[in-house]
Amino acid sequence: MPTVVENLAQRPAEDAAEVIDRLMAATADGMEAVNRLILSRSDSPVDMVPEVANHLLDAGGKRLRPMLTIAAAALFGTSDGNAVRFAAAVEFMHNATLLHDDVVDESDMRRGRPAARTIWGNQASVLVGDFLLGQAFLMMVESGDLGALEVLSRAAAVIAEGEVFQLAKAGDLSTTASDYEKIIHAKTATLFEAATEVGAMAGGAVPSARRALADYGRELGMAFQLVDDVLDYGGARGALGKNTGDDLREGKMTLPVILAIAACTDAERKTIQSALGNPDSGEDDLAAVLAIFARYGTLSETMAKAERHAEAARRALAEIPPSIERDILFSVPEFCTARAY
Amino acid sequence: MPTVVENLAQRPAEDAAEVIDRLMAATADGMEAVNRLILSRSDSPVDMVPEVANHLLDAGGKRLRPMLTIAAAALFGTSDGNAVRFAAAVEFMHNATLLHDDVVDESDMRRGRPAARTIWGNQASVLVGDFLLGQAFLMMVESGDLGALEVLSRAAAVIAEGEVFQLAKAGDLSTTASDYEKIIHAKTATLFEAATEVGAMAGGAVPSARRALADYGRELGMAFQLVDDVLDYGGARGALGKNTGDDLREGKMTLPVILAIAACTDAERKTIQSALGNPDSGEDDLAAVLAIFARYGTLSETMAKAERHAEAARRALAEIPPSIERDILFSVPEFCTARAY
Repeated sequence: MPTVVENLAQRPAEDAAEVIDRLMAATADGMEAVNRLILSRSDSPVDMVPEVANHLLDAGGKRLRPMLTIAAAALFGTSDGNAVRFAAAVEFMHNATLLHDDVVDESDMRRGRPAARTIWGNQASVLVGDFLLGQAFLMMVESGDLGALEVLSRAAAVIAEGEVFQLAKAGDLSTTASDYEKIIHAKTATLFEAATEVGAMAGGAVPSARRALADYGRELGMAFQLVDDVLDYGGARGALGKNTGDDLREGKMTLPVILAIAACTDAERKTIQSALGNPDSGEDDLAAVLAIFARYGTLSETMAKAERHAEAARRALAEIPPSIERDILFSVPEFCTARAY
Repeated sequence: MPTVVENLAQRPAEDAAEVIDRLMAATADGMEAVNRLILSRSDSPVDMVPEVANHLLDAGGKRLRPMLTIAAAALFGTSDGNAVRFAAAVEFMHNATLLHDDVVDESDMRRGRPAARTIWGNQASVLVGDFLLGQAFLMMVESGDLGALEVLSRAAAVIAEGEVFQLAKAGDLSTTASDYEKIIHAKTATLFEAATEVGAMAGGAVPSARRALADYGRELGMAFQLVDDVLDYGGARGALGKNTGDDLREGKMTLPVILAIAACTDAERKTIQSALGNPDSGEDDLAAVLAIFARYGTLSETMAKAERHAEAARRALAEIPPSIERDILFSVPEFCTARAY
């Protein structure tokens, strides 16, 4: 769908930033309580625990997932109590995953700063991740809501399963678009889905509205990860930059690579293969791979898929009565996709 | 208390093996259901998940913790339903911890076989550990018992906190006996305590009996870890062997070392210091450290402490009405300590 992509590409980037500003403003009260809870629950008499936890928690992540939980709850009239607990639990689960991911990916940097494992080592990253996961479950238990506990604990297992699948598929050229879809659904969309679903539950949504918010979160999460995977290649236009090509060097089989391998010549496949999973592959190798992506339009095709998920997220909100919160949630998918243009 | 130690040292080792056989026989029905649940919940369409999980789960661990859960529930008349769920959850939590511990300790072997990380790498060990933790929580949620969920999720956070504390103290000669007590309470006794406490809850114990079983599990866990730390130096007599001295090489500040450092001369302290946390320290270094332990009786003193916790565990059962299960639980602490003689 090149037309959709081109239309969106013409929208000014400021619009995207405005969306996140509006989301932040609409969830400010709830997020203040969430941030207080995060601070108190990442504390411990063992100094290394808050040191490692706060290094990541303070690193200026947008806290998109807990904001979505608060906004989803607010749709149904409340954004305190359990909404705050679930939002903090979702952020802890996310940060536990990041700590473990950095160990798994052997990443040196995270959010523009040295990764926790670079400063405190893999050991502390694994263990503080486990601590955050335990604290997340404890906050969920305190909610007393067994239904929400089920959603979040199932999400924890599915996320880990998805990460193992991704690991098993690293550098595997036979990875299909359907494998990729399963991986990003599990490792990313599941937590977005859980975040909005438990938000709706905390707000007291009826079952159909709860399902709508779950659908919204899942589709938004799919769009988010597709865009992330495009951003790793410098965005929809494909451009070399300082954070470009990490996925390629780590051998991650993301959609732009999968689509290219399916379409390209034997010689081009060899070019991709020699760069994929090769930590020493440099700018020239990346430029050669980007040229293949451009030849077959795989970054645009990935963005078109992201746009379709963004549209499905918006559609999921159709049955929710209009409100300021609904308008904001409606515009979040666009924020997600606009990052790539 | 050398007299206690010597008396126990004279008991035949067969007695200890008999205790575990009786525990296994008494919990056989419940454990069959637990083992089925463990098998089904460690399965996944992602092949690597059951491969890694079962490598560890099949490795012939005694499954002491889930047996304790089943036996604790049976004390109060039931060992099915939630007792089975909690027992499987406890075993999953334990195995998740082992997978992560092997990464943290860089261990190559576990239960006499190559550690999962040796075969599948650190990455799979971290992620499959996370999967097992997620599945553990899901089984707890299925119990519908929020009280037990609180016990187990609090345990998960405390265990991780204790492991971080142990990591922070590795190789730190100023570590005190009180630090050590906090570490083993958190990393080991907490899960034993949770195992017997949720067992009692599943059995429908009244609050005082629930507390008694929690006390029993905690004291048993303390004894278990003290004995483990003595076994790492070849048992109460201190003897070189193929699995001896791992803690020393990893710089773990366990009680035998802490007591020796507090009592020894400057020259002896230098001997300990040069072997501690030194992966290259060999049999000669270990023999020199064992000679210092013998000079100050620190292995016996550690065993005496284990015996006191074992006695406290037995005492905790005093108010529980006599039954076959109570008799068996009463004898388990002795099985724990007898391993070291």
